[in-house]
Amino acid sequence: MVSATGSARRSAGRPLNRVLSQETITRAALTLIESRGYEGLTMSSLARALKVAPSSLYNHVESKGDVLILVQDHVMTQVDVSGFESEPWEHAVRLFAWSYRDVFTRHTPLIPVIAVLPVSGAPQTLAVYEAVTRGFQKAGWPEPLIVPAIIALESFIFGSAFDATAPESIFESGQLAGQYPQFTAAVAARKDHADQRQADVAFGLGLDALILGLRARVAGDLR
Amino acid sequence: MVSATGSARRSAGRPLNRVLSQETITRAALTLIESRGYEGLTMSSLARALKVAPSSLYNHVESKGDVLILVQDHVMTQVDVSGFESEPWEHAVRLFAWSYRDVFTRHTPLIPVIAVLPVSGAPQTLAVYEAVTRGFQKAGWPEPLIVPAIIALESFIFGSAFDATAPESIFESGQLAGQYPQFTAAVAARKDHADQRQADVAFGLGLDALILGLRARVAGDLR
Repeated sequence: MVSATGSARRSAGRPLNRVLSQETITRAALTLIESRGYEGLTMSSLARALKVAPSSLYNHVESKGDVLILVQDHVMTQVDVSGFESEPWEHAVRLFAWSYRDVFTRHTPLIPVIAVLPVSGAPQTLAVYEAVTRGFQKAGWPEPLIVPAIIALESFIFGSAFDATAPESIFESGQLAGQYPQFTAAVAARKDHADQRQADVAFGLGLDALILGLRARVAGDLR
Repeated sequence: MVSATGSARRSAGRPLNRVLSQETITRAALTLIESRGYEGLTMSSLARALKVAPSSLYNHVESKGDVLILVQDHVMTQVDVSGFESEPWEHAVRLFAWSYRDVFTRHTPLIPVIAVLPVSGAPQTLAVYEAVTRGFQKAGWPEPLIVPAIIALESFIFGSAFDATAPESIFESGQLAGQYPQFTAAVAARKDHADQRQADVAFGLGLDALILGLRARVAGDLR
Protein backbone atom coordinates (compact mmCIF):
# COMPACT_ATOMS: atom_id res chain seq x y z
CA MET A 1 0.00 0.00 0.00
CA VAL A 2 1.24 3.46 -0.85
CA SER A 3 0.82 5.81 2.05
CA ALA A 4 -0.18 9.47 1.66
CA THR A 5 2.38 10.16 4.40
CA GLY A 6 5.28 8.61 2.48
CA SER A 7 8.67 10.29 2.65
CA ALA A 8 8.45 11.70 -0.90
CA ARG A 9 5.25 13.59 -0.05
CA ARG A 10 5.30 17.18 -1.26
CA SER A 11 4.14 19.93 1.06
CA ALA A 12 0.88 21.50 -0.10
CA GLY A 13 2.32 24.88 -1.04
CA ARG A 14 5.21 23.63 -3.18
CA PRO A 15 4.86 24.17 -6.95
CA LEU A 16 4.11 21.05 -8.99
CA ASN A 17 6.69 19.77 -11.45
CA ARG A 18 6.03 19.87 -15.18
CA VAL A 19 5.65 16.11 -15.63
CA LEU A 20 2.90 15.56 -13.06
CA SER A 21 0.63 18.53 -12.42
CA GLN A 22 -2.98 19.00 -11.36
CA GLU A 23 -3.71 19.60 -15.04
CA THR A 24 -2.15 16.37 -16.31
CA ILE A 25 -3.78 14.41 -13.46
CA THR A 26 -7.16 15.94 -14.30
CA ARG A 27 -6.81 15.18 -17.99
CA ALA A 28 -5.81 11.56 -17.35
CA ALA A 29 -8.67 11.10 -14.85
CA LEU A 30 -11.22 12.47 -17.34
CA THR A 31 -10.02 10.03 -19.98
CA LEU A 32 -10.26 7.10 -17.54
CA ILE A 33 -13.78 8.02 -16.36
CA GLU A 34 -15.03 8.46 -19.89
CA SER A 35 -13.70 5.09 -21.03
CA ARG A 36 -14.38 2.94 -17.94
CA GLY A 37 -16.95 4.86 -15.89
CA TYR A 38 -16.19 6.38 -12.53
CA GLU A 39 -15.84 2.88 -11.03
CA GLY A 40 -12.83 2.44 -13.30
CA LEU A 41 -11.05 5.43 -11.80
CA THR A 42 -8.76 4.31 -8.99
CA MET A 43 -5.53 5.78 -7.73
CA SER A 44 -3.63 2.82 -9.20
CA SER A 45 -5.34 2.93 -12.63
CA LEU A 46 -4.66 6.67 -12.72
CA ALA A 47 -0.98 6.15 -11.86
CA ARG A 48 -0.75 3.54 -14.64
CA ALA A 49 -2.40 5.91 -17.14
CA LEU A 50 0.07 8.64 -16.17
CA LYS A 51 2.98 6.17 -16.32
CA VAL A 52 4.13 7.13 -12.83
CA ALA A 53 4.49 5.22 -9.58
CA PRO A 54 1.46 5.50 -7.25
CA SER A 55 3.74 7.22 -4.73
CA SER A 56 4.35 10.08 -7.22
CA LEU A 57 0.61 10.48 -7.69
CA TYR A 58 0.05 10.65 -3.92
CA ASN A 59 2.48 13.56 -3.80
CA HIS A 60 -0.17 15.63 -5.60
CA VAL A 61 -3.58 14.25 -4.57
CA GLU A 62 -4.40 12.46 -1.35
CA SER A 63 -7.29 10.32 -2.55
CA LYS A 64 -9.72 9.50 -5.34
CA GLY A 65 -12.00 12.13 -3.77
CA ASP A 66 -9.37 14.80 -4.49
CA VAL A 67 -9.16 13.64 -8.11
CA LEU A 68 -12.93 13.83 -8.58
CA ILE A 69 -12.94 17.41 -7.30
CA LEU A 70 -10.28 18.29 -9.88
CA VAL A 71 -12.32 16.63 -12.63
CA GLN A 72 -15.59 18.27 -11.57
CA ASP A 73 -13.90 21.61 -11.39
CA HIS A 74 -12.36 21.28 -14.84
CA VAL A 75 -15.65 20.32 -16.48
CA MET A 76 -17.47 23.24 -14.84
CA THR A 77 -15.15 25.74 -16.57
CA GLN A 78 -16.85 24.75 -19.83
CA VAL A 79 -20.28 25.96 -18.67
CA ASP A 80 -21.27 29.35 -20.12
CA VAL A 81 -22.33 31.81 -17.40
CA SER A 82 -21.51 34.93 -19.42
CA GLY A 83 -25.19 35.81 -19.86
CA PHE A 84 -25.64 36.56 -16.17
CA GLU A 85 -23.39 39.61 -16.50
CA SER A 86 -25.13 41.36 -19.33
CA GLU A 87 -28.35 39.63 -20.39
CA PRO A 88 -31.86 39.66 -18.90
CA TRP A 89 -32.38 36.83 -16.34
CA GLU A 90 -34.51 34.68 -18.60
CA HIS A 91 -32.05 34.80 -21.50
CA ALA A 92 -29.08 34.21 -19.20
CA VAL A 93 -30.75 31.15 -17.61
CA ARG A 94 -31.52 29.73 -21.04
CA LEU A 95 -27.92 30.20 -22.26
CA PHE A 96 -26.54 28.71 -19.03
CA ALA A 97 -28.89 25.73 -19.02
CA TRP A 98 -28.29 24.68 -22.64
CA SER A 99 -24.54 25.06 -22.21
CA TYR A 100 -24.54 23.13 -18.90
CA ARG A 101 -26.62 20.33 -20.44
CA ASP A 102 -24.38 20.08 -23.50
CA VAL A 103 -21.23 19.89 -21.38
CA PHE A 104 -22.65 17.12 -19.18
CA THR A 105 -24.08 15.23 -22.14
CA ARG A 106 -20.40 14.68 -23.00
CA HIS A 107 -19.64 13.72 -19.38
CA THR A 108 -22.64 11.74 -18.09
CA PRO A 109 -20.44 9.31 -16.12
CA LEU A 110 -19.49 12.29 -13.95
CA ILE A 111 -23.07 13.20 -13.04
CA PRO A 112 -23.56 10.60 -10.28
CA VAL A 113 -20.32 11.86 -8.75
CA ILE A 114 -20.76 15.59 -9.21
CA ALA A 115 -24.36 15.69 -8.03
CA VAL A 116 -23.27 14.64 -4.54
CA LEU A 117 -19.74 16.11 -4.35
CA PRO A 118 -19.26 19.04 -1.94
CA VAL A 119 -18.20 22.29 -3.65
CA SER A 120 -15.72 23.31 -0.97
CA GLY A 121 -12.26 23.34 -2.53
CA ALA A 122 -13.66 23.51 -6.08
CA PRO A 123 -12.97 27.14 -7.06
CA GLN A 124 -14.19 26.96 -10.68
CA THR A 125 -17.46 25.38 -9.56
CA LEU A 126 -17.90 28.07 -6.94
CA ALA A 127 -17.14 30.71 -9.59
CA VAL A 128 -20.02 29.32 -11.68
CA TYR A 129 -22.41 29.45 -8.71
CA GLU A 130 -21.21 32.95 -7.83
CA ALA A 131 -21.95 34.19 -11.36
CA VAL A 132 -25.38 32.53 -11.39
CA THR A 133 -26.22 33.88 -7.93
CA ARG A 134 -25.32 37.44 -8.97
CA GLY A 135 -27.60 37.08 -11.97
CA PHE A 136 -30.50 35.98 -9.77
CA GLN A 137 -29.82 38.80 -7.29
CA LYS A 138 -29.75 41.41 -10.08
CA ALA A 139 -33.12 40.07 -11.26
CA GLY A 140 -34.55 40.72 -7.78
CA TRP A 141 -34.77 37.15 -6.53
CA PRO A 142 -35.44 36.80 -2.78
CA GLU A 143 -32.24 35.46 -1.18
CA PRO A 144 -33.68 32.24 0.37
CA LEU A 145 -35.07 31.06 -3.00
CA ILE A 146 -31.87 31.45 -5.04
CA VAL A 147 -30.06 28.23 -4.06
CA PRO A 148 -33.19 26.04 -4.25
CA ALA A 149 -33.88 27.47 -7.74
CA ILE A 150 -30.29 26.75 -8.86
CA ILE A 151 -30.56 23.18 -7.51
CA ALA A 152 -33.88 22.67 -9.32
CA LEU A 153 -32.38 23.90 -12.59
CA GLU A 154 -29.31 21.70 -12.11
CA SER A 155 -31.41 18.63 -11.39
CA PHE A 156 -33.37 19.19 -14.59
CA ILE A 157 -30.10 19.74 -16.49
CA PHE A 158 -28.40 16.60 -15.12
CA GLY A 159 -31.41 14.40 -15.91
CA SER A 160 -31.70 15.96 -19.36
CA ALA A 161 -28.01 15.28 -20.06
CA PHE A 162 -28.70 11.56 -19.58
CA ASP A 163 -31.74 11.81 -21.83
CA ALA A 164 -29.66 13.51 -24.51
CA THR A 165 -27.52 10.35 -24.74
CA ALA A 166 -30.55 8.03 -25.04
CA PRO A 167 -31.28 6.40 -28.39
CA GLU A 168 -34.03 8.17 -30.38
CA SER A 169 -36.02 4.91 -30.28
CA ILE A 170 -36.00 4.62 -26.46
CA PHE A 171 -39.79 5.01 -26.21
CA GLU A 172 -40.78 2.64 -29.02
CA SER A 173 -43.10 0.02 -27.46
CA GLY A 174 -42.11 -2.71 -29.93
CA GLN A 175 -44.15 -5.90 -29.74
CA LEU A 176 -46.06 -4.59 -26.72
CA ALA A 177 -47.50 -1.60 -28.63
CA GLY A 178 -51.00 -3.12 -28.82
CA GLN A 179 -51.24 -3.39 -25.04
CA TYR A 180 -50.32 0.25 -24.46
CA PRO A 181 -52.25 2.08 -27.18
CA GLN A 182 -52.39 5.58 -25.69
CA PHE A 183 -48.68 5.80 -24.98
CA THR A 184 -47.85 4.28 -28.38
CA ALA A 185 -50.05 6.90 -30.05
CA ALA A 186 -48.41 9.70 -28.07
CA VAL A 187 -44.93 8.47 -29.06
CA ALA A 188 -46.01 8.44 -32.71
CA ALA A 189 -47.54 11.93 -32.41
CA ARG A 190 -44.40 13.56 -31.04
CA LYS A 191 -42.71 12.79 -34.36
CA ASP A 192 -44.39 15.93 -35.66
CA HIS A 193 -41.30 17.74 -34.36
CA ALA A 194 -39.47 16.19 -37.29
CA ASP A 195 -36.55 18.58 -37.59
CA GLN A 196 -35.40 18.46 -33.95
CA ARG A 197 -33.88 15.75 -31.75
CA GLN A 198 -36.48 14.40 -29.30
CA ALA A 199 -34.19 15.19 -26.36
CA ASP A 200 -33.91 18.81 -27.49
CA VAL A 201 -37.69 19.17 -27.83
CA ALA A 202 -38.19 17.81 -24.31
CA PHE A 203 -35.38 19.95 -22.86
CA GLY A 204 -36.71 23.10 -24.54
CA LEU A 205 -40.25 22.43 -23.33
CA GLY A 206 -39.15 21.69 -19.76
CA LEU A 207 -36.74 24.62 -19.60
CA ASP A 208 -39.36 27.08 -20.86
CA ALA A 209 -41.81 25.70 -18.29
CA LEU A 210 -39.30 25.92 -15.45
CA ILE A 211 -38.32 29.50 -16.34
CA LEU A 212 -41.95 30.58 -16.63
CA GLY A 213 -42.90 28.83 -13.39
CA LEU A 214 -39.93 30.20 -11.47
CA ARG A 215 -40.64 33.73 -12.70
CA ALA A 216 -44.26 33.42 -11.59
CA ARG A 217 -43.12 32.23 -8.17
CA VAL A 218 -40.80 35.21 -7.76
CA ALA A 219 -43.46 37.64 -8.97
CA GLY A 220 -45.81 36.16 -6.36
CA ASP A 221 -43.19 36.47 -3.62
CA LEU A 222 -42.46 40.07 -4.49
CA ARG A 223 -46.07 41.10 -4.86
CA MET B 1 -17.23 -18.60 -22.52
CA VAL B 2 -20.80 -19.62 -21.92
CA SER B 3 -22.80 -19.36 -25.10
CA ALA B 4 -26.41 -18.19 -25.22
CA THR B 5 -26.93 -20.96 -27.76
CA GLY B 6 -25.71 -23.69 -25.40
CA SER B 7 -27.54 -27.04 -25.45
CA ALA B 8 -29.28 -26.41 -22.10
CA ARG B 9 -30.90 -23.23 -23.45
CA ARG B 10 -34.58 -22.98 -22.61
CA SER B 11 -37.04 -21.95 -25.29
CA ALA B 12 -38.60 -18.53 -24.62
CA GLY B 13 -42.09 -19.76 -23.88
CA ARG B 14 -41.20 -22.49 -21.40
CA PRO B 15 -42.06 -21.75 -17.74
CA LEU B 16 -39.13 -21.01 -15.43
CA ASN B 17 -38.28 -23.41 -12.63
CA ARG B 18 -38.77 -22.38 -9.02
CA VAL B 19 -35.08 -22.13 -8.13
CA LEU B 20 -34.08 -19.68 -10.87
CA SER B 21 -36.84 -17.37 -12.08
CA GLN B 22 -37.03 -13.87 -13.52
CA GLU B 23 -38.00 -12.77 -10.03
CA THR B 24 -35.01 -14.30 -8.24
CA ILE B 25 -32.67 -13.02 -10.97
CA THR B 26 -34.14 -9.52 -10.65
CA ARG B 27 -33.80 -9.53 -6.88
CA ALA B 28 -30.19 -10.72 -6.98
CA ALA B 29 -29.31 -8.14 -9.66
CA LEU B 30 -30.83 -5.31 -7.61
CA THR B 31 -28.78 -6.32 -4.59
CA LEU B 32 -25.58 -6.44 -6.67
CA ILE B 33 -26.20 -3.04 -8.30
CA GLU B 34 -26.97 -1.37 -5.00
CA SER B 35 -23.83 -2.69 -3.32
CA ARG B 36 -21.31 -2.40 -6.19
CA GLY B 37 -22.84 -0.01 -8.69
CA TYR B 38 -24.00 -1.08 -12.11
CA GLU B 39 -20.40 -1.68 -13.14
CA GLY B 40 -20.35 -4.47 -10.55
CA LEU B 41 -23.23 -6.29 -12.22
CA THR B 42 -21.88 -8.87 -14.63
CA MET B 43 -23.36 -12.16 -15.73
CA SER B 44 -20.67 -14.00 -13.76
CA SER B 45 -21.10 -11.96 -10.55
CA LEU B 46 -24.86 -12.50 -10.85
CA ALA B 47 -24.41 -16.26 -11.30
CA ARG B 48 -22.18 -16.32 -8.21
CA ALA B 49 -24.73 -14.33 -6.19
CA LEU B 50 -27.44 -16.80 -7.25
CA LYS B 51 -25.15 -19.77 -6.52
CA VAL B 52 -25.74 -21.21 -10.00
CA ALA B 53 -23.47 -21.96 -12.95
CA PRO B 54 -23.34 -19.16 -15.55
CA SER B 55 -24.86 -21.62 -18.04
CA SER B 56 -28.01 -21.89 -15.85
CA LEU B 57 -28.31 -18.10 -15.78
CA TYR B 58 -28.02 -17.91 -19.57
CA ASN B 59 -31.00 -20.24 -19.78
CA HIS B 60 -33.14 -17.35 -18.51
CA VAL B 61 -31.47 -14.13 -19.71
CA GLU B 62 -29.30 -13.68 -22.76
CA SER B 63 -27.18 -10.76 -21.59
CA LYS B 64 -26.60 -8.10 -18.97
CA GLY B 65 -28.92 -5.91 -21.06
CA ASP B 66 -31.77 -8.35 -20.40
CA VAL B 67 -31.03 -8.26 -16.67
CA LEU B 68 -31.12 -4.46 -16.60
CA ILE B 69 -34.51 -4.47 -18.30
CA LEU B 70 -35.81 -6.81 -15.58
CA VAL B 71 -34.37 -4.55 -12.87
CA GLN B 72 -35.73 -1.36 -14.43
CA ASP B 73 -39.11 -2.93 -14.83
CA HIS B 74 -39.24 -4.11 -11.21
CA VAL B 75 -38.30 -0.70 -9.83
CA MET B 76 -40.94 1.03 -11.96
CA THR B 77 -43.73 -0.98 -10.29
CA GLN B 78 -43.00 1.03 -7.14
CA VAL B 79 -43.92 4.36 -8.79
CA ASP B 80 -47.39 5.64 -7.84
CA VAL B 81 -49.49 6.46 -10.92
CA SER B 82 -52.85 5.98 -9.18
CA GLY B 83 -53.57 9.71 -9.23
CA PHE B 84 -53.91 9.77 -13.00
CA GLU B 85 -57.09 7.70 -12.78
CA SER B 86 -59.06 9.82 -10.36
CA GLU B 87 -57.29 13.06 -9.46
CA PRO B 88 -56.99 16.38 -11.32
CA TRP B 89 -53.89 16.51 -13.59
CA GLU B 90 -51.88 18.80 -11.34
CA HIS B 91 -52.43 16.69 -8.22
CA ALA B 92 -51.74 13.47 -10.12
CA VAL B 93 -48.46 14.82 -11.51
CA ARG B 94 -47.36 15.93 -8.06
CA LEU B 95 -48.15 12.50 -6.52
CA PHE B 96 -46.39 10.71 -9.40
CA ALA B 97 -43.31 12.95 -9.33
CA TRP B 98 -42.68 12.72 -5.57
CA SER B 99 -43.20 8.96 -5.63
CA TYR B 100 -40.93 8.52 -8.68
CA ARG B 101 -38.21 10.66 -7.09
CA ASP B 102 -38.39 8.77 -3.79
CA VAL B 103 -38.14 5.39 -5.53
CA PHE B 104 -35.09 6.45 -7.54
CA THR B 105 -33.44 8.14 -4.56
CA ARG B 106 -33.16 4.57 -3.25
CA HIS B 107 -31.87 3.38 -6.64
CA THR B 108 -29.62 6.14 -8.00
CA PRO B 109 -27.09 3.65 -9.43
CA LEU B 110 -29.87 2.58 -11.81
CA ILE B 111 -30.49 6.08 -13.19
CA PRO B 112 -27.59 6.17 -15.68
CA VAL B 113 -28.84 2.83 -16.98
CA ILE B 114 -32.57 3.45 -17.00
CA ALA B 115 -32.37 6.89 -18.56
CA VAL B 116 -31.01 5.38 -21.78
CA LEU B 117 -32.62 1.91 -21.76
CA PRO B 118 -35.30 1.27 -24.43
CA VAL B 119 -38.76 0.53 -22.98
CA SER B 120 -39.60 -2.19 -25.49
CA GLY B 121 -39.93 -5.46 -23.61
CA ALA B 122 -40.43 -3.69 -20.25
CA PRO B 123 -44.17 -4.14 -19.62
CA GLN B 124 -44.32 -2.53 -16.16
CA THR B 125 -42.48 0.52 -17.43
CA LEU B 126 -44.85 0.78 -20.37
CA ALA B 127 -47.80 0.41 -17.97
CA VAL B 128 -46.50 3.43 -16.04
CA TYR B 129 -46.20 5.50 -19.23
CA GLU B 130 -49.63 4.34 -20.39
CA ALA B 131 -51.22 5.50 -17.11
CA VAL B 132 -49.41 8.84 -17.25
CA THR B 133 -50.33 9.36 -20.91
CA ARG B 134 -54.03 8.69 -20.17
CA GLY B 135 -53.88 11.29 -17.41
CA PHE B 136 -52.41 13.88 -19.78
CA GLN B 137 -54.98 13.04 -22.47
CA LYS B 138 -57.86 13.37 -19.98
CA ALA B 139 -56.51 16.79 -19.03
CA GLY B 140 -56.73 17.85 -22.68
CA TRP B 141 -53.03 17.81 -23.56
CA PRO B 142 -52.27 18.06 -27.30
CA GLU B 143 -50.92 14.65 -28.39
CA PRO B 144 -47.48 15.82 -29.71
CA LEU B 145 -46.61 17.52 -26.41
CA ILE B 146 -47.35 14.56 -24.10
CA VAL B 147 -44.15 12.55 -24.51
CA PRO B 148 -41.84 15.61 -24.41
CA ALA B 149 -43.60 16.71 -21.20
CA ILE B 150 -43.18 13.25 -19.64
CA ILE B 151 -39.47 13.25 -20.61
CA ALA B 152 -39.00 16.73 -19.11
CA LEU B 153 -40.65 15.64 -15.85
CA GLU B 154 -38.56 12.45 -15.74
CA SER B 155 -35.33 14.36 -16.36
CA PHE B 156 -36.13 16.68 -13.46
CA ILE B 157 -37.03 13.66 -11.30
CA PHE B 158 -33.85 11.70 -12.11
CA GLY B 159 -31.61 14.69 -11.41
CA SER B 160 -33.50 15.42 -8.20
CA ALA B 161 -33.08 11.82 -7.04
CA PHE B 162 -29.30 12.31 -7.17
CA ASP B 163 -29.64 15.59 -5.31
CA ALA B 164 -31.71 13.89 -2.60
CA THR B 165 -28.71 11.69 -1.79
CA ALA B 166 -26.29 14.64 -1.57
CA PRO B 167 -24.99 15.68 1.85
CA GLU B 168 -26.80 18.71 3.32
CA SER B 169 -23.46 20.54 3.38
CA ILE B 170 -22.77 20.08 -0.37
CA PHE B 171 -22.95 23.84 -1.06
CA GLU B 172 -20.84 25.06 1.86
CA SER B 173 -17.96 27.07 0.36
CA GLY B 174 -15.56 26.31 3.22
CA GLN B 175 -12.25 28.19 3.13
CA LEU B 176 -13.17 29.79 -0.20
CA ALA B 177 -16.27 31.52 1.21
CA GLY B 178 -14.63 34.96 1.19
CA GLN B 179 -13.95 34.79 -2.55
CA TYR B 180 -17.55 33.92 -3.42
CA PRO B 181 -19.55 36.22 -1.14
CA GLN B 182 -22.86 36.32 -3.01
CA PHE B 183 -23.19 32.55 -3.33
CA THR B 184 -22.06 32.06 0.27
CA ALA B 185 -24.75 34.53 1.42
CA ALA B 186 -27.40 32.77 -0.69
CA VAL B 187 -26.46 29.38 0.80
CA ALA B 188 -26.76 30.85 4.30
CA ALA B 189 -30.12 32.47 3.46
CA ARG B 190 -31.73 29.26 2.23
CA LYS B 191 -31.40 27.91 5.78
CA ASP B 192 -34.55 29.85 6.55
CA HIS B 193 -36.38 26.70 5.38
CA ALA B 194 -35.23 25.15 8.64
CA ASP B 195 -37.78 22.38 9.01
CA GLN B 196 -37.33 20.82 5.55
CA ARG B 197 -34.50 18.96 3.84
CA GLN B 198 -32.77 21.22 1.29
CA ALA B 199 -33.36 18.65 -1.45
CA ASP B 200 -37.09 18.63 -0.71
CA VAL B 201 -37.31 22.43 -0.82
CA ALA B 202 -35.55 22.47 -4.21
CA PHE B 203 -37.65 19.61 -5.58
CA GLY B 204 -40.90 21.22 -4.41
CA LEU B 205 -39.94 24.58 -5.91
CA GLY B 206 -38.89 23.06 -9.24
CA LEU B 207 -41.89 20.77 -9.47
CA ASP B 208 -44.35 23.60 -8.78
CA ALA B 209 -42.59 25.70 -11.42
CA LEU B 210 -42.62 22.90 -13.99
CA ILE B 211 -46.32 22.15 -13.40
CA LEU B 212 -47.25 25.82 -13.62
CA GLY B 213 -45.13 26.35 -16.72
CA LEU B 214 -46.43 23.23 -18.46
CA ARG B 215 -50.04 24.20 -17.71
CA ALA B 216 -49.42 27.66 -19.14
CA ARG B 217 -47.93 26.12 -22.26
CA VAL B 218 -50.96 23.88 -22.77
CA ALA B 219 -53.38 26.73 -22.12
CA GLY B 220 -51.48 28.73 -24.76
CA ASP B 221 -51.61 25.87 -27.24
CA LEU B 222 -55.34 25.35 -26.73
CA ARG B 223 -56.25 29.01 -26.86
